[in-house]
Amino acid sequence: MDAALGIDVGGTNVRVAVLDARTGAVLAVRRGALAGRTPEQVVGAVAVAAREAMAAAGVRPAVAGAGVAAQLDGDSGRVLSAPNLGWRDVALGEMLGAALGLPVRVVNDLTAAAWGEYRHGAARGKSGGLVVFAGTGVGAAVVVDGRLLAGARGVAGEIGHVKVEPPPGEAERSCGCGARGCLEAYVGGAGIAARLALARSAGNAAGLSSPNDVERAALAGDAWARAFWEATAGRLGRAVADAVTLLDPGTLVLGGGLLLGNPSLLAAVERVIRAEASQTALEGLFLTHAALGDDAGVIGAALLSVKSRTVK
Amino acid sequence: MDAALGIDVGGTNVRVAVLDARTGAVLAVRRGALAGRTPEQVVGAVAVAAREAMAAAGVRPAVAGAGVAAQLDGDSGRVLSAPNLGWRDVALGEMLGAALGLPVRVVNDLTAAAWGEYRHGAARGKSGGLVVFAGTGVGAAVVVDGRLLAGARGVAGEIGHVKVEPPPGEAERSCGCGARGCLEAYVGGAGIAARLALARSAGNAAGLSSPNDVERAALAGDAWARAFWEATAGRLGRAVADAVTLLDPGTLVLGGGLLLGNPSLLAAVERVIRAEASQTALEGLFLTHAALGDDAGVIGAALLSVKSRTVK
Repeated sequence: MDAALGIDVGGTNVRVAVLDARTGAVLAVRRGALAGRTPEQVVGAVAVAAREAMAAAGVRPAVAGAGVAAQLDGDSGRVLSAPNLGWRDVALGEMLGAALGLPVRVVNDLTAAAWGEYRHGAARGKSGGLVVFAGTGVGAAVVVDGRLLAGARGVAGEIGHVKVEPPPGEAERSCGCGARGCLEAYVGGAGIAARLALARSAGNAAGLSSPNDVERAALAGDAWARAFWEATAGRLGRAVADAVTLLDPGTLVLGGGLLLGNPSLLAAVERVIRAEASQTALEGLFLTHAALGDDAGVIGAALLSVKSRTVK
Repeated sequence: MDAALGIDVGGTNVRVAVLDARTGAVLAVRRGALAGRTPEQVVGAVAVAAREAMAAAGVRPAVAGAGVAAQLDGDSGRVLSAPNLGWRDVALGEMLGAALGLPVRVVNDLTAAAWGEYRHGAARGKSGGLVVFAGTGVGAAVVVDGRLLAGARGVAGEIGHVKVEPPPGEAERSCGCGARGCLEAYVGGAGIAARLALARSAGNAAGLSSPNDVERAALAGDAWARAFWEATAGRLGRAVADAVTLLDPGTLVLGGGLLLGNPSLLAAVERVIRAEASQTALEGLFLTHAALGDDAGVIGAALLSVKSRTVK
């Protein structure tokens, strides 16, 4: 059997799975806690978890894919910047490859999760589509004719870095990527927390510090929380609607903790998409939700390491 | 030799060319003026011009492609709405097919022109890319691995219908497509004329009624004209920048009369793209301008009628 190793590097732990490369079935999965966030500590934790997963699965994969929340230097395996990990310019692909004795392809973590959903989750069997994840970060996978659009420099799908207007009454925000006005700066995990902190210091949003707090308050009828969700859904929904208009993708999968954990926000985002995307593209659109949960990232990373599943 | 017929249906005339389907070389091209804009008059004018072009080329094409400034019902060849022609729900593909005795594929005129540029113009030889035309309408072609992204319903590339904020001091505008806030409603030909008329009636923009008027005034240092171009470039440039961020296309071709006819606007649009698109995608981006002039549409339409040049 052809097996592949999937790696998901998070900010507090790593997740490693051994997959049947043909079917996408997970043969074994192991998690490792991080003692610290240096590249050496992360690579060490991956190596331990990988050994355990391979022993449990009883197979030795020939290739590995790793997803990491980072700006990558195209296909080189270098991390340019990973704010959650405090990394700048880390040769992650090379380091993981040396530790595991395998060629390792490094991809954006959201791209990996989105690809996992496309191939073996909510969009299984579809030939094309758009998968958008919103959680700590905001990212997407564009799938054309069964293959992931990698892009000329390997950075296609970065919907978190399209530019949006600040919500009414809010100031323009800086993004972890160094630019200003990125979607992720408003609707990513850190962006939402910072917007709520600013609102609390202005005397609004009392007791609201997380998306779940806002969701509970919105469901309980709190007008400020509802307006905050509407403004958030407006930015995220418009960016997704514009991508649907540009791509006419046929299938749209929405996922990630922010959307799946907060049903009233998800419903508002879907209303914006239906109101603002091209009506013809909408008529042909199958809109669904991510189904693989926490395994999407390791599945997608492993599958992206196999053969030529990408296109420029 | 395999020949293909390319048809470009404009608001005041039609253009028909016979091409070598393999090389894209134009063997003969004929224009026909329209006596009127009914579907029958347009089809009649196309049939006359096609007979002349085929006689001049000395070959009989087996397939034809027609570009028309219209909202299309996916791949069916039906025009849902063509405001420039005053059409609603016209079975153009069927009518042209009966008149010419050929299978006719109907595509959006800007998609056709963009594809012509990609295959035989400014982006010749590139494997992927984004081609954006802004003139009377605003549209794009997304090219992946040498093929045009058609989309699930055949309407991919409709960048003119992504949603944008009105420029400062301006009201939200309705679009010819029936939606509100579309990019084309601000930067398409009719949108610019209407915005200038509103400005004149408010006491600004004296003597400015066309893009070329604005360009001359901006070049002469007129502050109002410069601000109008900056606001226009801001909307168009951001939409293109966001598409570059999402697609990482490697090649970006800008074309169409609005951009190529107004160099200071074009420069402003390019500044916005370079400021707002993902920096990694920009590093790998070859930015160039359309090179085929008025023949882009017939060339692209003809080439799209041949074999499977499209992907969903």
